[in-house]
Amino acid sequence: MLPPDLLSAADYERHANVRLPPAVWAWLEGGSGDEASLIANRRAFESWSIVPRVLRRSGQGSTRVRLLGQQLAMPILLAPIGQMARFHVDGEVAVARAAAAAGTQLIASSNSSLPISDIANQVGNSSWFQLYWQGNRERTLALLHRAEAAGCTAIVLTLDTPIQPASPRAQVAGASALPFACPNLRDLPALPPRSLQPGDSVIFQGAMADAPDAEDVAWLRARTKRPLLAKGVMHPDDAALLIALGCDGLVVSNHGGRALPSAPASLTVLPAIRRQVGPAALVLMDGGVRTGCDVFKALALGANAVLLGRPQAHALAVAGALGVAHLLRLLHDELSTCMALAGRFRVSDIVCDDLLANP
Amino acid sequence: MLPPDLLSAADYERHANVRLPPAVWAWLEGGSGDEASLIANRRAFESWSIVPRVLRRSGQGSTRVRLLGQQLAMPILLAPIGQMARFHVDGEVAVARAAAAAGTQLIASSNSSLPISDIANQVGNSSWFQLYWQGNRERTLALLHRAEAAGCTAIVLTLDTPIQPASPRAQVAGASALPFACPNLRDLPALPPRSLQPGDSVIFQGAMADAPDAEDVAWLRARTKRPLLAKGVMHPDDAALLIALGCDGLVVSNHGGRALPSAPASLTVLPAIRRQVGPAALVLMDGGVRTGCDVFKALALGANAVLLGRPQAHALAVAGALGVAHLLRLLHDELSTCMALAGRFRVSDIVCDDLLANP
Amino acid sequence: MLPPDLLSAADYERHANVRLPPAVWAWLEGGSGDEASLIANRRAFESWSIVPRVLRRSGQGSTRVRLLGQQLAMPILLAPIGQMARFHVDGEVAVARAAAAAGTQLIASSNSSLPISDIANQVGNSSWFQLYWQGNRERTLALLHRAEAAGCTAIVLTLDTPIQPASPRAQVAGASALPFACPNLRDLPALPPRSLQPGDSVIFQGAMADAPDAEDVAWLRARTKRPLLAKGVMHPDDAALLIALGCDGLVVSNHGGRALPSAPASLTVLPAIRRQVGPAALVLMDGGVRTGCDVFKALALGANAVLLGRPQAHALAVAGALGVAHLLRLLHDELSTCMALAGRFRVSDIVCDDLLANP
Amino acid sequence: MLPPDLLSAADYERHANVRLPPAVWAWLEGGSGDEASLIANRRAFESWSIVPRVLRRSGQGSTRVRLLGQQLAMPILLAPIGQMARFHVDGEVAVARAAAAAGTQLIASSNSSLPISDIANQVGNSSWFQLYWQGNRERTLALLHRAEAAGCTAIVLTLDTPIQPASPRAQVAGASALPFACPNLRDLPALPPRSLQPGDSVIFQGAMADAPDAEDVAWLRARTKRPLLAKGVMHPDDAALLIALGCDGLVVSNHGGRALPSAPASLTVLPAIRRQVGPAALVLMDGGVRTGCDVFKALALGANAVLLGRPQAHALAVAGALGVAHLLRLLHDELSTCMALAGRFRVSDIVCDDLLANP
Ligand SMILES: Cc1cc2nc3c(=O)[nH]c(=O)nc-3n(C[C@H](O)[C@H](O)[C@H](O)COP(=O)(O)O)c2cc1C
Ligand SMILES: Cc1cc2nc3c(=O)[nH]c(=O)nc-3n(C[C@H](O)[C@H](O)[C@H](O)COP(=O)(O)O)c2cc1C
Ligand SMILES: Cc1cc2nc3c(=O)[nH]c(=O)nc-3n(C[C@H](O)[C@H](O)[C@H](O)COP(=O)(O)O)c2cc1C
Ligand SMILES: Cc1cc2nc3c(=O)[nH]c(=O)nc-3n(C[C@H](O)[C@H](O)[C@H](O)COP(=O)(O)O)c2cc1C
Repeated sequence: MLPPDLLSAADYERHANVRLPPAVWAWLEGGSGDEASLIANRRAFESWSIVPRVLRRSGQGSTRVRLLGQQLAMPILLAPIGQMARFHVDGEVAVARAAAAAGTQLIASSNSSLPISDIANQVGNSSWFQLYWQGNRERTLALLHRAEAAGCTAIVLTLDTPIQPASPRAQVAGASALPFACPNLRDLPALPPRSLQPGDSVIFQGAMADAPDAEDVAWLRARTKRPLLAKGVMHPDDAALLIALGCDGLVVSNHGGRALPSAPASLTVLPAIRRQVGPAALVLMDGGVRTGCDVFKALALGANAVLLGRPQAHALAVAGALGVAHLLRLLHDELSTCMALAGRFRVSDIVCDDLLANP
Repeated sequence: MLPPDLLSAADYERHANVRLPPAVWAWLEGGSGDEASLIANRRAFESWSIVPRVLRRSGQGSTRVRLLGQQLAMPILLAPIGQMARFHVDGEVAVARAAAAAGTQLIASSNSSLPISDIANQVGNSSWFQLYWQGNRERTLALLHRAEAAGCTAIVLTLDTPIQPASPRAQVAGASALPFACPNLRDLPALPPRSLQPGDSVIFQGAMADAPDAEDVAWLRARTKRPLLAKGVMHPDDAALLIALGCDGLVVSNHGGRALPSAPASLTVLPAIRRQVGPAALVLMDGGVRTGCDVFKALALGANAVLLGRPQAHALAVAGALGVAHLLRLLHDELSTCMALAGRFRVSDIVCDDLLANP
Repeated sequence: MLPPDLLSAADYERHANVRLPPAVWAWLEGGSGDEASLIANRRAFESWSIVPRVLRRSGQGSTRVRLLGQQLAMPILLAPIGQMARFHVDGEVAVARAAAAAGTQLIASSNSSLPISDIANQVGNSSWFQLYWQGNRERTLALLHRAEAAGCTAIVLTLDTPIQPASPRAQVAGASALPFACPNLRDLPALPPRSLQPGDSVIFQGAMADAPDAEDVAWLRARTKRPLLAKGVMHPDDAALLIALGCDGLVVSNHGGRALPSAPASLTVLPAIRRQVGPAALVLMDGGVRTGCDVFKALALGANAVLLGRPQAHALAVAGALGVAHLLRLLHDELSTCMALAGRFRVSDIVCDDLLANP
Repeated sequence: MLPPDLLSAADYERHANVRLPPAVWAWLEGGSGDEASLIANRRAFESWSIVPRVLRRSGQGSTRVRLLGQQLAMPILLAPIGQMARFHVDGEVAVARAAAAAGTQLIASSNSSLPISDIANQVGNSSWFQLYWQGNRERTLALLHRAEAAGCTAIVLTLDTPIQPASPRAQVAGASALPFACPNLRDLPALPPRSLQPGDSVIFQGAMADAPDAEDVAWLRARTKRPLLAKGVMHPDDAALLIALGCDGLVVSNHGGRALPSAPASLTVLPAIRRQVGPAALVLMDGGVRTGCDVFKALALGANAVLLGRPQAHALAVAGALGVAHLLRLLHDELSTCMALAGRFRVSDIVCDDLLANP
């Protein structure tokens, strides 16, 4: 049923490239601007080695991890990706099912192809919900309520793209003509028209004026009992502020190289953020994770768990729910093997001394 | 009217390559010698990342900047490039018009295809004037007077090429056979013949003897009321000397990799020059600026504004004044977006802590 | 008889590539995972230079070395490689003969194509024996006894692959379908079936439960009078532990990039291991050794001798025992020349000051 | 007469590649072993930038330099290269004529295609002589006397290749079958046969036993009144020893990447050698010099002058004496331009502060 040469995330990527229409592929893969940030994500992982150990007793070893009171089979979640119907007719439902089967979680995007309630109903299992700020508090609250009504067990507020620079690859390939629907946002209260003054910037006085600030986060914090995480954090001071505002966790992320074109790799800024927020805070990361060794490196540098972005879309495109479940199994086995050979048998044992910077 | 895939300076470069005759292209693109200096300019930008910030209030954000009492819509000027008629029949006039429309300035070259007075008349707006030393004071003064008569609002004295090493690419492509006219220099007082002694060097006792020294700059300073900038400064001591001689500003530049073949990137020497001259001095830079993030990086490392060299020629070649105006709009938007995502809403807020050296 | 263009290990590699069936080639060459570890092995050698010296008296110069009381003509042994019949019908016998002719040693693999007794008989000379732990003490002891019975003069216990991650290259090429026989392991006492509990990991509670720990090494140490070396050591603490457990020597190795996919180069970790165990301990290394200069670098960075992995398979494939003997001669001459030009005429004179890190 | 696109040493290299028979080309270009040392020579130059200066008075500027009491028009000599008849029928004579015309010196090789006396006679001008040790003192003295009789004004004793590792490129291309004649060595006293003992090494007890040691250099020093330089010095201690033995100067050189395969770049070790021998000692260097900026960098890092190796063969192959003279003119002009733009108008003014290490 699955092609026999699907042995790693790289194989799924290769197969997906062949199957997906060029415009969808370009939209999925592209990074903003000159893709420096996208490239940096991979380079950062390649710049570390893991030191093997021998003779360690594996005893009760496992990849299990507790996050926000939930037990996960592995420290790998599925990152929010909008418009998943572009990859497979079953879209988010397939991914959520695969996540449940693999003992982990999908973080369903605000921009999902299906309403969050439909995903929850069809999967019979609740996801986490990725929340985009909707220009003002009223609209954002309405969307939050939809997620809560669908039983979402955590809210992940994405902060890194109040404005999103274009991906040249995607533009050239005609991605803007792809069908686009955001049923989660249907019939939200209307956004009052904003009138720019002469000399005003569509960016500073336009899009950015619709972005949330610290008070908005404090306000949102007070509006939900669900754990609230902030996604797209790249500076230690922002990390500290968000924790101070009551966030239950952070996702260190440059949006897969799709936000600020010259952003550093998420992995590069991770250690300073972990130092800033202390060992107790919940810190996830994403951007460039492709192998079990990558997961290990992210954990060693300070993450409690990682999110997987594009690879889930590759697996979804190749083989639907089955593909995603299989991909998660491959990553689980790679991580287990990596931990076993590095002599770390529990996720919480992994430390930065297990790594060596490549010369 | 414009091809639909013109989304960045890189796109204009690609299109211009196809349109321009090979000799013009080679002359435009080539660097001196082995092009190490040309390549270094781009590498230097690629070696820095910009750290994204979240939750910042954009308030009165804008890309505006005041330079020498003039208000510019963005910290991006158009560098002096000679012989612009090689790229488009409208040459400097088209560029100056686009600059005016975009709220910025052209620095018209001594070697413009049109007399500076014609540019001023046709555009109905005054440029800055780039002044090449003309071998002695009398000739230089005559040229300065032409620029002043044309209403030029600032004088930029280029110092980095008393002798200009060949670009191999340009020579092989036959660029020396391209038509060449410098109407600004027509009918200047004649340069007295210089007789070299046996054993004299055409370089040291020849070309270099016609180059200005510190006393010449002091002399020139006293001859004009316009702001005087020195272009082609790459060493902190030279920067300090020029400020001491009364210059109103500096352009850190290796002449786009067309002067000393092994010169470092301008961006590389910028921070030490800023440190040397202090925060109040006006420091511009050019060489390799291609994106809004590049502009941001140059500002973070000490520049008050940047100059754009080859990209204006690309845009001019592709679509005349419209192309240049469009290119400036693209760069303006890229810079705005970059500032917004880096949480810096005014040009003067950008600091070197906003950057991270790539590992 | 030998093709005339066989002048270095690189030539043998090229020739072997043409001769071997693709599946065998992929299995031989491949590294685990993304091959980062495999690539690192070569990069590490390339990152060092050797400083030439002049005017030194070569006197009694030679490449000879004493290891464990045995005199070797050069500090180069032949690493254990399983299934050598895949490269040449004479398999391990050819290699052992070439080793004997060249005055060095084969370390015969547990997974040899021929029983260790047959190798010993046909060659009329005893090898070292590479021992894989066989899941429990009883089975391991039985295998050890076979090696001792065959007269093996040293035991090399490989510790780095209690579980071995796949080589994608080999899998895609169909290497798993290659014939595989391990006569050394025939009729060992059966391994008691292990029943995993629900939720158990096939890796942690499965394969890793069959791996030896420190007590097993201590136990093994007490079971044999032969020198015991531990292979696959990459961390200074593990090195110290193994010496403390009574091992007579170590092989610093990442298994030729076939164990932990992100492992550093063996050469990279070698100096810290040498520092940890002190100058008297026997420390061998392998991974990426291809030239006489590579051997010199490994010795300078702390090894007493090196092991040659894939190159022996290349030479075997190209020309059987003659090829391996010729390859050893080439490496011997390269090492002699390198030592002569570096002014080091005895293996024990080579020190890390002879090297310069490449800028 | 000369092709019009010969504008730099790189152009001569390109043209020579087309003209020379493949075996000659491979022999000329090849480095020993994996060519790491050859590649390092170029990389080392590329790793430095030169900081441009402005406003400096060039005054009495020139590239002239005094070496050993001789006035040279530029700090560039022609390195000894054997068998120059392989490149052009006029061989060493053409090169020596070009050197004289350009105001510099050829260092004629012991292995010249013509006897040193013939070169002197035909050129009517004396070269320096590169001396290879001839196995013992008697033979070496005989050769020295031939050079002195031919009026050679300096003796350059090459020490770096008592044994010379093969260039794989040259071997594969069949260079060993090229005609080879060393008329300088004809009828030297015979070398007594050396009988190796069993177990002896052809390298340590063979070739190396014929190499000179410190006492031989002291002996040689006492045998000639001409300035004596040692070529192939790469370690500060060897440099100090040679000066202590009475040498008048050194050539820092890895023999153009043709001696120890892993040797560092000559440029890399130059500063430490200059530091060791102090500012007064005469230190030349070669290896990878291709442009005027390269010459400048070598001077800045401690050399009094450089030697040009392969480029002279390229120019000789393309256009005989005229080509070599033209090449020297190009390099002279490049160096003058570089000095002019770096604000250093005398060779002795160039200092390491003029350089910036590339990031
Ligand atoms: C096609 C695509 C769509 C995405 N959509 C969203 C989204 O709707 N919300 C969000 O927070 N992040 C979104 N992301 C970012 C991902 O959540 C994640 O941060 C990123 O993909 C991780 O990097 P990786 O793809 O290298 O694993 C999207 C990423 C991609 C590639
Ligand atoms: C074709 C060309 C012509 C130029 N002509 C001049 C000139 O006349 N005067 C001057 O000061 N600089 C001149 N420059 C240098 C530019 O002003 C500027 O320093 C350089 O192009 C900036 O680098 P960039 O092209 O990478 O943006 C020229 C550059 C180019 C490419
Ligand atoms: C095809 C192959 C089979 C191997 N089999 C064994 C083995 O059976 N036992 C063992 O300890 N190491 C084995 N190794 C690892 C080698 O002993 C050695 O550590 C490695 O090949 C050294 O790296 P190199 O190939 O770069 O020289 C094997 C390696 C290869 C390439
Ligand atoms: C073909 C060839 C022959 C050479 N022959 C000699 C020689 O006879 N004596 C000697 O001292 N060096 C010899 N050399 C080394 C050169 O003198 C010089 O050190 C080297 O070529 C400098 O490096 P470059 O070629 O990169 O400039 C030779 C080099 C080459 C390429």
